[in-house]
Amino acid sequence: MSEFYTLSLDLHRHTSGKWEIKSKFPLETQKDLSVAYTPGVAAVSKKIAGERNEAWQLTMKGNTVAVVSDGSAVLGLGDIGPYAALPVMEGKAIILKTFAGVDGVPIVLDATEPEDIIRVVKAIAPTFGGINLEDIKAPKCFEIEDALQNIGIPVFHDDQHGTAIVLMAGLLNALTLTGKKLSEMTVVINGAGAAGAAVAKLLLGIGIHNFPIDRPKDIIMLDTKGVISEDRNDLHPYKRELLKYTNRSGVRGGLKEALTGADVFIGLSAGGILNRHDIAHMAKDPIIFALANPVPEIMPEEAYLGGASVVGTGRSDFPNQVNNALAFPGIFRGALDAKASTITPGMKLAAAFALSSLVPSPMPERILPRPLEEGVAEIVAKAVYQAAFDDGVAGKALLF
Amino acid sequence: MSEFYTLSLDLHRHTSGKWEIKSKFPLETQKDLSVAYTPGVAAVSKKIAGERNEAWQLTMKGNTVAVVSDGSAVLGLGDIGPYAALPVMEGKAIILKTFAGVDGVPIVLDATEPEDIIRVVKAIAPTFGGINLEDIKAPKCFEIEDALQNIGIPVFHDDQHGTAIVLMAGLLNALTLTGKKLSEMTVVINGAGAAGAAVAKLLLGIGIHNFPIDRPKDIIMLDTKGVISEDRNDLHPYKRELLKYTNRSGVRGGLKEALTGADVFIGLSAGGILNRHDIAHMAKDPIIFALANPVPEIMPEEAYLGGASVVGTGRSDFPNQVNNALAFPGIFRGALDAKASTITPGMKLAAAFALSSLVPSPMPERILPRPLEEGVAEIVAKAVYQAAFDDGVAGKALLF
Repeated sequence: MSEFYTLSLDLHRHTSGKWEIKSKFPLETQKDLSVAYTPGVAAVSKKIAGERNEAWQLTMKGNTVAVVSDGSAVLGLGDIGPYAALPVMEGKAIILKTFAGVDGVPIVLDATEPEDIIRVVKAIAPTFGGINLEDIKAPKCFEIEDALQNIGIPVFHDDQHGTAIVLMAGLLNALTLTGKKLSEMTVVINGAGAAGAAVAKLLLGIGIHNFPIDRPKDIIMLDTKGVISEDRNDLHPYKRELLKYTNRSGVRGGLKEALTGADVFIGLSAGGILNRHDIAHMAKDPIIFALANPVPEIMPEEAYLGGASVVGTGRSDFPNQVNNALAFPGIFRGALDAKASTITPGMKLAAAFALSSLVPSPMPERILPRPLEEGVAEIVAKAVYQAAFDDGVAGKALLF
Repeated sequence: MSEFYTLSLDLHRHTSGKWEIKSKFPLETQKDLSVAYTPGVAAVSKKIAGERNEAWQLTMKGNTVAVVSDGSAVLGLGDIGPYAALPVMEGKAIILKTFAGVDGVPIVLDATEPEDIIRVVKAIAPTFGGINLEDIKAPKCFEIEDALQNIGIPVFHDDQHGTAIVLMAGLLNALTLTGKKLSEMTVVINGAGAAGAAVAKLLLGIGIHNFPIDRPKDIIMLDTKGVISEDRNDLHPYKRELLKYTNRSGVRGGLKEALTGADVFIGLSAGGILNRHDIAHMAKDPIIFALANPVPEIMPEEAYLGGASVVGTGRSDFPNQVNNALAFPGIFRGALDAKASTITPGMKLAAAFALSSLVPSPMPERILPRPLEEGVAEIVAKAVYQAAFDDGVAGKALLF
């Protein structure tokens, strides 16, 4: 770990970050300038002024995605502000480009109120073909994403949906591996922030017409105060909303109560909160996703000692890494190629299925592909592209 | 001309614009990912969270400039909106990179009110080391630029100052060539928009302590209604402000009255408004800058027939092109390298002097360098860098 820290600091210091721009063609002669810039460019501007949809073909817009953050929930570091968030956004931007050919543009904001962030994203939207919201804390991330669903281009909060998609892909393969059925599973999600809510909704197929698979038997969610249950009178409206489709069994109490007899544990919380004895109270051969970073809720070795059948983490140095980089590059590639106006729940599900299909024969140490494997983004993109057509949002991206 | 139009349209259509991003290093191995992104990047974010000034060295910020437009005054095409403005902003962005190594990022805005544009630029400022305002119409461009002078990073409206700087460089060399003295010159500026006001202020050294050269004898400015004079009761406050330092001789009337006996004509207006007979009313051997695009106020050949000694235009297919690309790349390079908090009038003057020095022996067909000549941006950058120190703004760029 600390090896990567030192290398990363050195690298960023040496090159002043990792993101730069590039001209698509050389400006070497006066003619080059006259074609790329004035007077030639006037013809391009005129063309778009006459028919603004030409901007998709004649400008950078159709292939460019803003990676927007206010720095309020960066990695596991919390609310560290826009400057400290910038290296992470640069990372996402170059991953978009390297994995999927999408031009990512980091935009970190000196803005904290949801209405200010919404206003800024709407204002800069003409430049971009999509908006990747990133590292914005709950609950404001929900309000912001909701308010931006009708701006004509896809807006996708990766902390919510990227995590949910990759996790679902991993869970589906873990079930195949262990011969279990989702409809018989009680899933415990520890952490009701941005990712937790999205995981629950995707597993339950909320917003998906003709959800093609069984839903889990039950999902029990917890926040820092314990199980999210009807008797709680301290719940934020978005958590109360979650009760509409979770905790049907009416569990109350803390993590111990939730885990008793549960089949799947999904940790989106804090490091080191579980040990092998906690796992032992779960149903037989439980599936464990311990995604806290850098220290997981339980280390894989410890989880296996407690009887886990499969363990995934957020870390690249263990098998089964739930890494958002598996999803967001292909999702934006597919959405841009389809000229989708939005990223529907169906497109997210398609991405999860595509990712799980990349591991046709799951093994305990391999329920997910690695981000650098050949074809990951392409296969996700293809599935998302097709789903955009199925859901009727392809070709609907709009210029306002 | 139409050759460039066709080529430019074809080019933009073929490549979907001319701007893209690039990763500064390959993401080929799991280790690359762990260093550039998680977990390694957490160390960089933490470092900046502890000491935010580290962002200058550890991120893209210090080398990146937003090219911001609302599309309200694009080329000679007027208020064509953000989408049609985007190809022009892409052009400026790749010129910044190609000429001066500065990473330009086009940001076109769905915002028209000055306060909205100001708010958005302030909000996105943490991402950037400078802001190049572009193609924003007068008078709102003045209000916007003024309001953004204290955001900690340089904000530069190129239509105003870029034009003023290059024009001043050309004028200084034209005076050398013709053996005239600026202090004896009456300068007529036809057009009182963004560029006109900036040209007047720079020639008069407004805001420059110890202006090192003589000021023109007088500057007469005109808008579409005629000479800007005390008797006008239809003047916008910013035009009234111009009367503080222009038209000391109290000229009234139209272009004909203004030109009579004048030494220099600077056209920032509309094509074809002058002919040789108009020029003949000026003082002997007048200096003509006819910058309307694509059709100049008077064609060079016609101006020479009227007695002009030197003629500059905005066009690349005539000699003496007043091209902003001579100035803005070097200006941002110098300002970023100096970590300047703002671009002072002194830095603009230094840029003008540097540009004029690039043509040590002016000739009628060469009073300005060409943008693609070796070393233009470097020499401008060096002068601007030095002037930032002289003016006490170097090292003062701030993170809020």
